[in-house]
Order: sequence, then structure tokens, then C-alpha cells
Amino acid sequence: MEKPDFASRMGKLKILMEKKRLDACLLNSRNDIFYYTGESIGDFSSLLVSSGKPCIFLTPLNNYVQKTSAFAVVWVRGIADIAKRLSRFKRTGFDEYTTSFWAFSELKKSKCSLVPFASQIKQPRMIKDEFELEHIGKASKIASKTLSNLGDLSGKTEMQVSDSIENAFRSSYSKPSFETIVASGKNSSHVHHINSSRTIGKKDLVVIDAGAVIDSYCSDISRTLCSLPGKREKQIIENVKETQCELIDMISEGVKYDDIQRKFENLMRKKRYKVLHSFGHGIGLSVHERPSKGDTLKEGMAITVEPGAYIKNFGGCRIEDIAIVRKGRAKILSS
Amino acid sequence: MEKPDFASRMGKLKILMEKKRLDACLLNSRNDIFYYTGESIGDFSSLLVSSGKPCIFLTPLNNYVQKTSAFAVVWVRGIADIAKRLSRFKRTGFDEYTTSFWAFSELKKSKCSLVPFASQIKQPRMIKDEFELEHIGKASKIASKTLSNLGDLSGKTEMQVSDSIENAFRSSYSKPSFETIVASGKNSSHVHHINSSRTIGKKDLVVIDAGAVIDSYCSDISRTLCSLPGKREKQIIENVKETQCELIDMISEGVKYDDIQRKFENLMRKKRYKVLHSFGHGIGLSVHERPSKGDTLKEGMAITVEPGAYIKNFGGCRIEDIAIVRKGRAKILSS
Repeated sequence: MEKPDFASRMGKLKILMEKKRLDACLLNSRNDIFYYTGESIGDFSSLLVSSGKPCIFLTPLNNYVQKTSAFAVVWVRGIADIAKRLSRFKRTGFDEYTTSFWAFSELKKSKCSLVPFASQIKQPRMIKDEFELEHIGKASKIASKTLSNLGDLSGKTEMQVSDSIENAFRSSYSKPSFETIVASGKNSSHVHHINSSRTIGKKDLVVIDAGAVIDSYCSDISRTLCSLPGKREKQIIENVKETQCELIDMISEGVKYDDIQRKFENLMRKKRYKVLHSFGHGIGLSVHERPSKGDTLKEGMAITVEPGAYIKNFGGCRIEDIAIVRKGRAKILSS
Repeated sequence: MEKPDFASRMGKLKILMEKKRLDACLLNSRNDIFYYTGESIGDFSSLLVSSGKPCIFLTPLNNYVQKTSAFAVVWVRGIADIAKRLSRFKRTGFDEYTTSFWAFSELKKSKCSLVPFASQIKQPRMIKDEFELEHIGKASKIASKTLSNLGDLSGKTEMQVSDSIENAFRSSYSKPSFETIVASGKNSSHVHHINSSRTIGKKDLVVIDAGAVIDSYCSDISRTLCSLPGKREKQIIENVKETQCELIDMISEGVKYDDIQRKFENLMRKKRYKVLHSFGHGIGLSVHERPSKGDTLKEGMAITVEPGAYIKNFGGCRIEDIAIVRKGRAKILSS
């Protein structure tokens, strides 16, 4: 497996910087820095990208980063040192989502004009190369295999099921990409349930939402299980499955994220379910990333398709898989 | 074990709000919200505290929170809905560390004056009640017991040691409070080492930094092990141990954090070591919290004491325990 082409990724960022007439750009999210440099650095580090010159890692005194041909390393005592560096530039792009108001106020002292640039920083990450698709594929396989092998859950508690899933990930040299959700019975009607010591019954709907990480790439899969489904349980599962198939059928290069969301909302309303979340989200180094609202799908994007229906005081169902966008039909990583 | 007195905690916050002439305060850090309400809520939720009225949870549509006598629940579609609510107030305190520049810009549209208030929001958390001390104590016990039982590490890789520590936490119904650090040989000269597949040798210094969580309360412990220490290894361990004892001797009600830091820096300089981090940090619901720079120690505070010495291309040593500040000598939770 070839290593990613970091120079080409950085080239894309520099073109976006030019378009916004930025002479510098400050990255401070771990995943963005990893994407552009391949370096897994600690918290509180930033990467200063400036046109023409090599990048500079700005990192705390107690952090060890090896200098390479692609970037220099400068140790800083605090954010005031970073602000000092910015004063050499006229217009610096920054990540308005990961920069706190406090950090912004400190950087502002540089007198350099600070331009919100998060959307562009994260734009190249949307389209995955072969290296990334392979890793997302592996992470999906581990998650879907683990959820397929759970067997009968009745008699176990939600926490026990969640522990066994996370242990299975670890024994596959992976780890959870987020806190595993196991929501059973009435609890499954809550989208973001916190696992309890409730014992799962044979007739319970059990929504399981879990993801694995392989070499920093995430997966995110949901399954709804039920040992002895009644009529109502069968119907909700059937409805969500159908909805997922219709949405997957839509996914293809050129389709707008918002159109899929609209379709999802219409399908749910027809079946008289409330819409409590979006149909899906981009996935890669982050569990949630672009494409999202406003984006148009392109070949090589990875996006979850996760319709969910929830009935208060009864239960819910969510089914989630990762689709890779192609010119024709999407490729589904898990199944 | 009695439950914490949430009403009294909230009362302290309201007094701080009055002092700053705030008619409202918006909390958005999970740990702050848990501290003031006992509610473990999902991300993207906020708690609006206003003088005289019950608090309001502002939470996304897909989040389930049960209303109680202490707070109301309002479902919001996005940050614009939160801004709308703020427009009823004149001066709202907010957490400038956990509010992104983007979120701040959205809230600003409310025309309400936004006042940075993080330091005051987190101030009551510094002094721990009996309930909190018991939980931090349990979390410390799990971590120190696990690190004491590791035995001879030689022949194992850093990653294997880290896995076995984290598994031990899990089998004690706990989980890691941060990513366990196992830094061996030359790697131990880096404060924030990322665990590798390096096999530990008999003569290697091995710095282990790990923490456990019990009921949301964290511990943070470091030990430096060496199976067959040479003269240089023995000396660095001896020096750091001595330094830790001198620092612990200083910890008592009324002493300034900055004075302990100065003492630490002087002791290290005398022994010709570089100072690469602070002597310690407050600990509780967060691994790093107040007291910090500028604070004065008071009875009931929990603070780590973690001197570390690092020699480039050789190795390092760090020893860390949690001290509970008292009127006289501090109480050490681990040993």
C-alpha cells in the first residue's frame, strides 16, 4: 500500500489559500494536521502553512516532533508566541470551529487579519484516495463483523454488550471511534442513549451504534437487533431497511447532500415517523466530517447512510452503513 | 455516600454571576454541566443559568433529557435558537475556552453582551466535597494499584504494557482518563511520547503515566520503572523522588501555586535539568483543571505533584501522585 501523497494534499490547500488571498493559514485540529503532514502530534500544537515556504510546526516546549524536509519545528511557550509569528502576515486563515474565543482573542493581538477558513481547510479531506478508502474499509469490516457476531443479546445488560463490542475491537488491533451505544427496549427511542445496566429482553428492539478505528481512520455502523420481534418491531425494522435502500440508491456523483436529506425527510413523514437526525454524514479521520449540508457528492467521498425511526415509549430502529460515492451506484463497505 | 449538594454548587455560581453583574450564564462544557446539575448530557447541549429562575437545558432535538425540579428542558434546532434565547438578557457570561470563535459569532447575533466567565464558572469546582474526594481516591487507588502490579516489563513492547494497564482499569469497572503513556529507553526523554512497538530492555527507564475514571472523577499517576538500573538511572530516579518529596512538603492551605512552581524550577536547575512542564495541576472531573497559575491552595483542593527530569538521547523520569490540600500536611492519595 503506497503512502499518501502529502505534497499533493498541501498543494490543494495552498490553491484554496490563494483564492482567498491568504498569505498564511493556521491549522490546529489533530486530524487536519495528520491529513496534511502524516504527523500524529499532541494537543496544543499548530501547523503554520505559508505560501512558498515550508510549513512550521508550532509546538509546546515539552512536545517532541522530528523536523523533516516538509516542515520545520519551532517550540513555543504559549499562544502569545504563535501570535508573534502571525504578525509577519497580512491575512491568515484559521479554523473557526476548533479555535476557542479565548485563543482567537490572543491571536488577534498579532494585528494580522484573521479569516475563518475551516470549510476550505477540511475540503480536500472529503475526497478519499486509495490509501484512505482501504483503511476506512478495514475499520468498517471490523465493526460490521463484530456486530454480526453478537448472537442473542437477551439476558445481557446494555453495558455488557457494549463492553464485549469494544473488547472485540481491541482484539482486532483497533479501538472504538466513539462511545458505543447499546439502547434496548424503550431506551432505543432515544437517539443518543447512555448505556445502562438494563437487562435486554427477548422482545426488545436493540439499537447498536459502534465504530472502529484503523490507523486513524474511522468507521460508524448501526444495527437494530431483536430476538423475538413482534409485529410492531418487524414493521419498524422493515420500514427503516426500505428507507436505507432508497437512500443508497440515490447516492451517486453529482447528487446534492440536501436533496438526499429532503428525500429522507419525505420518506419518514410518509411513514409517520419524526425526523430526529440527518440521513448521514461524511466519515474519514473524523467520525463526522464533510460532506454535509450544502455539499455535492463526488466520486471518492465516504458517507454514512443511517435512517432512524423512533417511537416514544416503545422503541426505535437505526440502520447505518458507509457508502463510497462513485460515478454510478455507490459501493457499500459493510453489509 | 451522600449525593452532592447541587443547589449549593449552583448558589456559588450565582454569587459569582452577581459580582460580575451578569443576568445569565451559558455553560457548555460537559464537566461543568455535570458538576452543577449531576446530569451527564451529550455534546452540543448547553445549560442556561439565569438569576432567580430555574436553569434551562438547551439540547438538540435528538437528545433525550428528563426535566426535573431543578431545570427545564428546551429542544433547539441549532445555535441560532440559543442566540434567540440570549436576546432576553443584558449580560451573559460564557466559557471562552469551550466556545469556538464560530459559536461566539453566532451567539453575538443576540445583541446580548457576552462576558468571558470561564475562570469563575470553574472556580467552585476547585474545592472538592467528601463525595468528590472519595471518587478521586478510588480512581487513584485503581491507577496506583495497577502500576504497582506490573512486574518486570522487559521483553514487552510499550503498546503491550499500555494495553495491559487499560485492560486492568476496565476489569476494575473503570476506564482510562487519558491515553496511557508508556515511554521506554530514549523515548522516556519525551514528555508526551506516543507509545510504540519498541521492546523494553532490562536497563531501560520506563516512564508510565496513566489515570483511571470512577463515576466521572479522574486520577493521574506516573511511575518510573527500571529492572536493572545503572548508576545514571538510579541517580535520576533518586533526584526526582527527592524533588517530589520537597514539593509535597510545601503543599498546604494558603500556599501559592506559583510559589510551588518557582520552587520546582529552582530545584530542577540546581540539579541541572531542564524544566519541561509545570510541577502539577488540579484534578477532578477533568484531568487538568484549576488550581493552576495564579491560584492559592485551599483545603479540599486536589492537585497532582509530578516533577519530571529529561535527558536528551538518554531517558527521563517522572513521578506523579495526587495531593489533597489540608490546613497542615497534604494527604497523598496514591503511594
